[in-house]
Amino acid sequence: MKRAALVYMFLVLTVGQGWAGSGDGKLLSAAQGAFQPLPKDFATADAPIEQDRVALGRKLFFDRRLSVDGTTSCMRCHEPGLYGADALDKPHGNHDKINSRNAPTVLNAAQQFVMHWLGDRSSVEDQATKALIGPASMGNSDFAAAMAKIKAIPGYAPLFHGAFPNDSDPVTPENFGKAVGAFERTLTTPSRFDDYLRGKISALSASERAGLAKFIDMGCANCHNGAGVGGGMFQKFGLTQDYWSETHSKTIDKGRFTVTHDEADLYVFKVPSLRNVAMTPPYFHDGSVKALPEAVRIMAKVQLGVDINTQDAGDIVAFLEALTGPLPHDFIVSPVLPAAAFTE
Amino acid sequence: MKRAALVYMFLVLTVGQGWAGSGDGKLLSAAQGAFQPLPKDFATADAPIEQDRVALGRKLFFDRRLSVDGTTSCMRCHEPGLYGADALDKPHGNHDKINSRNAPTVLNAAQQFVMHWLGDRSSVEDQATKALIGPASMGNSDFAAAMAKIKAIPGYAPLFHGAFPNDSDPVTPENFGKAVGAFERTLTTPSRFDDYLRGKISALSASERAGLAKFIDMGCANCHNGAGVGGGMFQKFGLTQDYWSETHSKTIDKGRFTVTHDEADLYVFKVPSLRNVAMTPPYFHDGSVKALPEAVRIMAKVQLGVDINTQDAGDIVAFLEALTGPLPHDFIVSPVLPAAAFTE
Repeated sequence: MKRAALVYMFLVLTVGQGWAGSGDGKLLSAAQGAFQPLPKDFATADAPIEQDRVALGRKLFFDRRLSVDGTTSCMRCHEPGLYGADALDKPHGNHDKINSRNAPTVLNAAQQFVMHWLGDRSSVEDQATKALIGPASMGNSDFAAAMAKIKAIPGYAPLFHGAFPNDSDPVTPENFGKAVGAFERTLTTPSRFDDYLRGKISALSASERAGLAKFIDMGCANCHNGAGVGGGMFQKFGLTQDYWSETHSKTIDKGRFTVTHDEADLYVFKVPSLRNVAMTPPYFHDGSVKALPEAVRIMAKVQLGVDINTQDAGDIVAFLEALTGPLPHDFIVSPVLPAAAFTE
Repeated sequence: MKRAALVYMFLVLTVGQGWAGSGDGKLLSAAQGAFQPLPKDFATADAPIEQDRVALGRKLFFDRRLSVDGTTSCMRCHEPGLYGADALDKPHGNHDKINSRNAPTVLNAAQQFVMHWLGDRSSVEDQATKALIGPASMGNSDFAAAMAKIKAIPGYAPLFHGAFPNDSDPVTPENFGKAVGAFERTLTTPSRFDDYLRGKISALSASERAGLAKFIDMGCANCHNGAGVGGGMFQKFGLTQDYWSETHSKTIDKGRFTVTHDEADLYVFKVPSLRNVAMTPPYFHDGSVKALPEAVRIMAKVQLGVDINTQDAGDIVAFLEALTGPLPHDFIVSPVLPAAAFTE
């Protein structure tokens, strides 16, 4: 028997079966190995959080007037009341154009290693900037047209100058991205799970801890791990069989292959963060599945080759529901946007 | 000389010229005759405000899932950050269909004697209910389809039962209207002008008081009066000449004639409330005018036959800006909507 197999048997016998009761400490240790608590924000050395930028970015995030037809702000696909998503299978943008893939929540988005289901946006800043000219999002014909929209609202110029004091002409696509990104880097939603990870075992109920144990045991946490419980790697959707025979997707999305044209990227997507997942149906890259228990069943089937039973799926759903945290104050409170929007 | 003319001359000589300095008290008296402070809410005997209904109505107001394509909540055309309006000339609803007339702010809407520019909705309750099946708003094919949308979100049933405890099947179009209406009847925005009306003359600046005096003197307050500074009567748009040669409207809207087919209603619209008007461009029934000073100039021209000078228009704009009040807490804070929106 190989060493790896022995270790696996040891884990199954001592850890896998020891989660309940006296095994609570072991489960906590295993969880602390797989996950980290959410940080207080998602600042980095390259993307520090400066309050003037956050305040500006917050207004820009909510401002539909920056889109080609005045209908589509970032908020349109990332509504506060819908936990930063939009409850649609695929988001609708300017002129009711429909985007290619389901809108992920903007909450905790900044902790992901790349953005979008295909990973074709490098950061929240990159995503926000390119959304200005996204054909099915804000739809501006080019960045100059987008900047003209901002400049047509007199209240924004002083805010850009305040947020970027070293720039003589601060109303730029890059600064738009930096401001919106700074706001998004504040959108963190720690939950009872973070209290648990810091050692407070009673922060999760018995059912939630049972779900956590199964989430680790079955292998879910091999991909859905880290502070985001996902958002840290690419993975093929459909490891043990194709996904679409279970999701009943209307079209077969080839995933990152669409971007790289590399056969190795066929059906490969970014592993989504499961933070607040209970609040953001429908599920998967195409929103093809509406209920969380069904999404859990499908993941067990097509990623792990397991026909999960109702009890196990229910426990895992209970654990996932414990990943719901309160909404950040400055997200659920709309900023007042600069008025006198128009000059003649 | 007739008695009415004598009274008018008396007013011009003693009141109209006495606004400044020692006339402050007289201006206040004239203002108190024309306007009333906003009440703390817009409850009536027929439409009492009950907190369970308000809380339910607030969620329904923000819930886009009730529309035929999941894109259009009440909030879509009445955004908090845009002071309860949408910054568009005409609002876009389901499938990007464009409504006939500019979206008025929902703030203080309940104090109006009728709703919509044409007065073809009797109350906020009536307006909300009919929006469910409005072809260019929420777009449901009929009320049964709209109720099915609500019933598909499990979180709503207990809220309806709590808000309408005497109803065995409370998820009805009428109760939807009552709940949304109860929420809207809380949306009052008193401003410094209300402090002024209660006797605090210094609540308005000298320029704002000069604007108020001109607003009364010129005749604006003949129609824009009451607690809403408008919203209390119908009036022909274009009393001294047609409106469209000044607004440059793309099409000529015949106003209430469209509803009544009575020649007397040609170009007749509800006089809009001017509360928060500085925050809700563009202006008029078709959003044809983008700047408030230009809207003031046009009103003087086509309603009063006056070529207003820049100073007077500026003072009136200063007065109108003093009608901007802070946003109600429960409007600018999004409610968290019932999650697990879908069952399978």
